[in-house]
Amino acid sequence: MNGAQSLIAAALSEGIEVCFANPGTTELPLVLALDEAPGIRSILCLHENVATGAADGYGRMLSKPAMCLLHLGPGLANGLTNLHNARRAGTPLLNVIGEHATWHIQADPLLASNIEALAHTFSAFAKRSTDARSIAVNLADAVHATGIGGGIATLIVPHDCQLAYAADVIPARRQVPKSSYSPANVGDAAKALQRGRSAILLGGKGLSEAGLKLAGRIAAATGADLLCDTFFARMERGGDLPMATRLPYFPDQALALTRPYDSVVLAGTRRPVAFFGYPGLPSYLTTEEQTVALATSAEDVLGDLEALAAELNAPNDIPQKPRMQLPAMPKGELNAQSVAQVIARLQPENGIVMDEALTVGIAYFDSSQSAPRFSHLMLTGGAIGQGPGAATGAAIACPGRKVINFESDGCGAYSVQAFWTQARENLDVVTIIGSNRSYNILNVEFERAGVKPLGPIARSMTRLDHPYLDWVRIGEGFGVPSVAVDSAEGLARELENALARKGPRLIEAIMS
Amino acid sequence: MNGAQSLIAAALSEGIEVCFANPGTTELPLVLALDEAPGIRSILCLHENVATGAADGYGRMLSKPAMCLLHLGPGLANGLTNLHNARRAGTPLLNVIGEHATWHIQADPLLASNIEALAHTFSAFAKRSTDARSIAVNLADAVHATGIGGGIATLIVPHDCQLAYAADVIPARRQVPKSSYSPANVGDAAKALQRGRSAILLGGKGLSEAGLKLAGRIAAATGADLLCDTFFARMERGGDLPMATRLPYFPDQALALTRPYDSVVLAGTRRPVAFFGYPGLPSYLTTEEQTVALATSAEDVLGDLEALAAELNAPNDIPQKPRMQLPAMPKGELNAQSVAQVIARLQPENGIVMDEALTVGIAYFDSSQSAPRFSHLMLTGGAIGQGPGAATGAAIACPGRKVINFESDGCGAYSVQAFWTQARENLDVVTIIGSNRSYNILNVEFERAGVKPLGPIARSMTRLDHPYLDWVRIGEGFGVPSVAVDSAEGLARELENALARKGPRLIEAIMS
Repeated sequence: MNGAQSLIAAALSEGIEVCFANPGTTELPLVLALDEAPGIRSILCLHENVATGAADGYGRMLSKPAMCLLHLGPGLANGLTNLHNARRAGTPLLNVIGEHATWHIQADPLLASNIEALAHTFSAFAKRSTDARSIAVNLADAVHATGIGGGIATLIVPHDCQLAYAADVIPARRQVPKSSYSPANVGDAAKALQRGRSAILLGGKGLSEAGLKLAGRIAAATGADLLCDTFFARMERGGDLPMATRLPYFPDQALALTRPYDSVVLAGTRRPVAFFGYPGLPSYLTTEEQTVALATSAEDVLGDLEALAAELNAPNDIPQKPRMQLPAMPKGELNAQSVAQVIARLQPENGIVMDEALTVGIAYFDSSQSAPRFSHLMLTGGAIGQGPGAATGAAIACPGRKVINFESDGCGAYSVQAFWTQARENLDVVTIIGSNRSYNILNVEFERAGVKPLGPIARSMTRLDHPYLDWVRIGEGFGVPSVAVDSAEGLARELENALARKGPRLIEAIMS
Repeated sequence: MNGAQSLIAAALSEGIEVCFANPGTTELPLVLALDEAPGIRSILCLHENVATGAADGYGRMLSKPAMCLLHLGPGLANGLTNLHNARRAGTPLLNVIGEHATWHIQADPLLASNIEALAHTFSAFAKRSTDARSIAVNLADAVHATGIGGGIATLIVPHDCQLAYAADVIPARRQVPKSSYSPANVGDAAKALQRGRSAILLGGKGLSEAGLKLAGRIAAATGADLLCDTFFARMERGGDLPMATRLPYFPDQALALTRPYDSVVLAGTRRPVAFFGYPGLPSYLTTEEQTVALATSAEDVLGDLEALAAELNAPNDIPQKPRMQLPAMPKGELNAQSVAQVIARLQPENGIVMDEALTVGIAYFDSSQSAPRFSHLMLTGGAIGQGPGAATGAAIACPGRKVINFESDGCGAYSVQAFWTQARENLDVVTIIGSNRSYNILNVEFERAGVKPLGPIARSMTRLDHPYLDWVRIGEGFGVPSVAVDSAEGLARELENALARKGPRLIEAIMS
C-alpha cells in the first residue's frame, strides 16, 4: 500500500470511525484511500471550522478522536478557532493535513505557509511525516497522544509521501496508560473538606455522570457545595444527578460566590480565571489560600474523587434533595428567560444541548436544573461560531439522541455552513437562533464600563439590525427546513414539531 | 489621551481612512476612540475573514492600508486565510488586535492564545505594545512597514495599555523611501531581450497601467511577448492597454508556453512556480537559464521598466494591434464559457472584476481581452473564500466604480457573511455565483491523475448537489436582493438590470 493507504489503515486500527473533511488536491490520495476503507465514515463540510467544530462535538460525546482532513495551511487556518475551543475543552481530536510534495515545497508555491507554526498553537502533538514508511507509525503516535488527558494531534503528510510505497504492516494499537490518582492531593482535599466551609469546583470528567455522583457523595459526607466551571466542555445534567452551581461569568459576581468558602477543591479543572480582566478586579476567582488542587482536567479526576469518597467514608447513596419544579411554560414575548424556559420544558429525555448563547445560556442553566437527563455542551474557548459544528459532530456521534443547539444571531452567523452538513447527513439537530439583532454582550460590557451614551460608531459596531439576518432564508439556503417565531407559544409549538420529526430543523426565535 | 485614542490619532495621521472591524471586549476602548474619529470609516463585518478580505481588496485598489480591528487570537485566526491571500498579493494592510490586559494574560484566560505565532506566518511586521506611551509610535512603525513593497503589519495592543494615559504627541508621518531601480538587472534584461526569442513575465505593479504601457513599449522595441502571472493581485486590462498572455494553471501547459523562449524577463514577479507539484513535472515553470530577474513585486518594477525602455530606445507610442472582437453574446445553457462571455460583454467601462472561479476564470481571461478598461483582481494565495470580502473592500475603496465578483459555489460558500456588509453599506457589488454544484477542480485533478471511476466516498467529497445550495435564499438571508438564472439570456438580462441599479445584487447562474 502507499503512504495514504497506510495512514487510513493505521487510523482504522487505532479506532478512528469518522472523518470530517474538506479536502483539496494535496489530499486526493487520502480521499482515494478512504474510498477503500468503508469503516471510516467521511463527512464533507463546506468550511473547515465546521469540520473541526464537528470533531470537537464528536470527541466530547465519545471521548475518542474523530479525524479532520484539511487542505494545507489555509485549510488548517480556517479550522483554527474551533481547534482553539477544542483545546480548551480537552477534546481528543486528530488533524491530518495534506502538504505539498517535499520536492515542491522548497519552491514556495502560493498555497505554502508555515503549517507547524499554526499547529503548535493548539496541538499537544504536531509532526510532519518525512517519508511514506513512517506515516503509519506517525499516525498511531498521533492518536495515542490524544488519549492521554485529551488533546489535539496534528499530522502533516506531504503529497509525495502519500503516493510512495509504504510498509504493509500497520503498528498494533497501543494501550493508553491509565493515569493514577494522587494520594497527596486526596489527603489535602479530605482535610480541607473536613474543616470550615468548602466547595468542590467541578470541570472536565468531574462533570461526567460518574464524577457528579462521586462529588454528590462527598458533598453528602462533608456538607461541601458543588460548583461547576462557567464554561464546561460537557456536563451531564438533569434527572436525579447532583446539581452544581455555575460560577458566574463576571468576576465580581464569581467572587461573591466563592468568597465565603474556606476552601475550594478543584476537581477536573484549574484555579478559576476571569474570562476578561477588568480594572480593579483580580484575574483569579479564588484566593491562593482557598484553592485546593485535587485534579486538573488532564489528570485522573475520577480516580481522585473515588479515593476521596473512600477516605471520607462517603455514603453510597446520595440523599435526593427535592428537585425544583420545571419552570412554567412562558407566554408572550420572547426574551432570554422565556427562550431558555421553553427549551428546558420541552427538551427530551437523553437529549444533547449545545449552548452557545451567552445571555440565553445564563438563564438556561438555571431553567434546566430539573430537566430530564441530558448532556450539556458549551463554548469552551470563547471563540464564537462553535455551536453549529459541535452540534453536527454530537449528532454524528450519538445517532439515537436529539440535539438542540441554541445560538445567538451573532455567534450563529459565523458557522452557517454547518447547516448544509446537517441537511446532507439528515442529522437530528434542532437549531434555535435567539435573534436579538445585536452583539448584545458588547452593550453589556459598555454598560459595565460606565460608557453612556454610546456614539454612533460604537453603537453601529454592536448592531445587527440593518439589515437583519433572515434566518429562515439562511437555513433553507443551506438545505434545512426553517421557521421564524416571535412568541413563547410559537417557539413551543415549533420546537415540539421539530423534535417530533427526523432530520434537522432551524427555528429563528425573534426576541423583543 | 489614552492609549487607544493615541492609536487612532496615529492611524489618522498615517492616512488610515477605513477600519474593517469585528471587535470584542478587549477592543472596546479602541471602538470608543473610533467614535471620536469620524475621519476613519468603521465597517462592521460578521466574520473576520470578511474584514481581512475587504482590507485586501481595498489595499489592492488604493495601494494604501486599511485597518482591520480583530478580537484577540481567535479573531486573527478567523481572518487568517485572507491574510494569507493578501500576503501573496503584496497588499499593504494593517491589523490591530486587542489583547488581554498585561496583568491578566499570565493567568491564561480561556480566550488567550499565541497571537504572535499566528501573526508571524503572514506579517512583514508584528509587534506587541508593552505600554500606553509606545502605542502611537508602534502604530506609525506598523503603517510604515506596509509601505515598503507592500506587506502586512500586525500590532497587538493589551487592554490595559489601551486604557492607560499616553503621550499627547502623535509622531509625524514618515516618508516611505522611494525604492530605486537596479542598473545591473536592467543591463541583463536589455541584453536578454536583444538576443533570441524572449518574453516579459509581468506581475505586481508590472500589471498597473504604467507598467503595462512600459512593457508594451519594450515589446515594440524588442519583439518580446508579454506574459502575466497565473494569479495576479490586480491587472489593469481592456481598452487600449497592451495585452498579456496568462501563464496556464497546469505546469505542463505552462511549460509548453515558456519552453520556446530563450529568455523570460521577470518584471514585478518571481520565477514562476507550479500551483501544485505533480509527479514527473518540475516545480519551476522556466529553466534557470531562461530566467532573467528584472524586479520582484517588492522592488521598483516601474523604475526598472522605465530604465529598460530608455536603454532599449523603446518608442514612445505603442503600435496598436487590431483588438479582438468581444465574443458574441451567447445563448442557451450556462457553462464556464457562456458565463464568462456574458460578463465580458456587459461589464461597464472602468469596472472592477473580482474573479475567484477557476473554471469560469480561465474562460473569462480570454473573453475579456477586448472589454472596456477595467481592473481585474484574482485569488492570489489559493485560499478560497476571498472574492466576496475583496469585492466588498474594492467597492469601499472606489465608490464610483461597479464591482463584479464572480464565484463558484464552493468558493462562495466560504464567505457568505460578506453579503451582509455589502447590504449594510449599500455597496455596488454584483455577485455572480457560477453554480456547478461541485468542487469541480477536484474532478479535474482526479482525471489528470488517471483515477477513474471514482468510488462513492471520493465522489461524494466533490459533490455539492445534495442538498444544493439555494443562493437566492442565502443572498436574501444576508440582505442582498438575489435572483437565479439558468440560461445565458437570463444571466445577461439580470446582469444588465443589476448594473443599472445602485446597491448590491446576487445572481445565481445555474450551470448545466
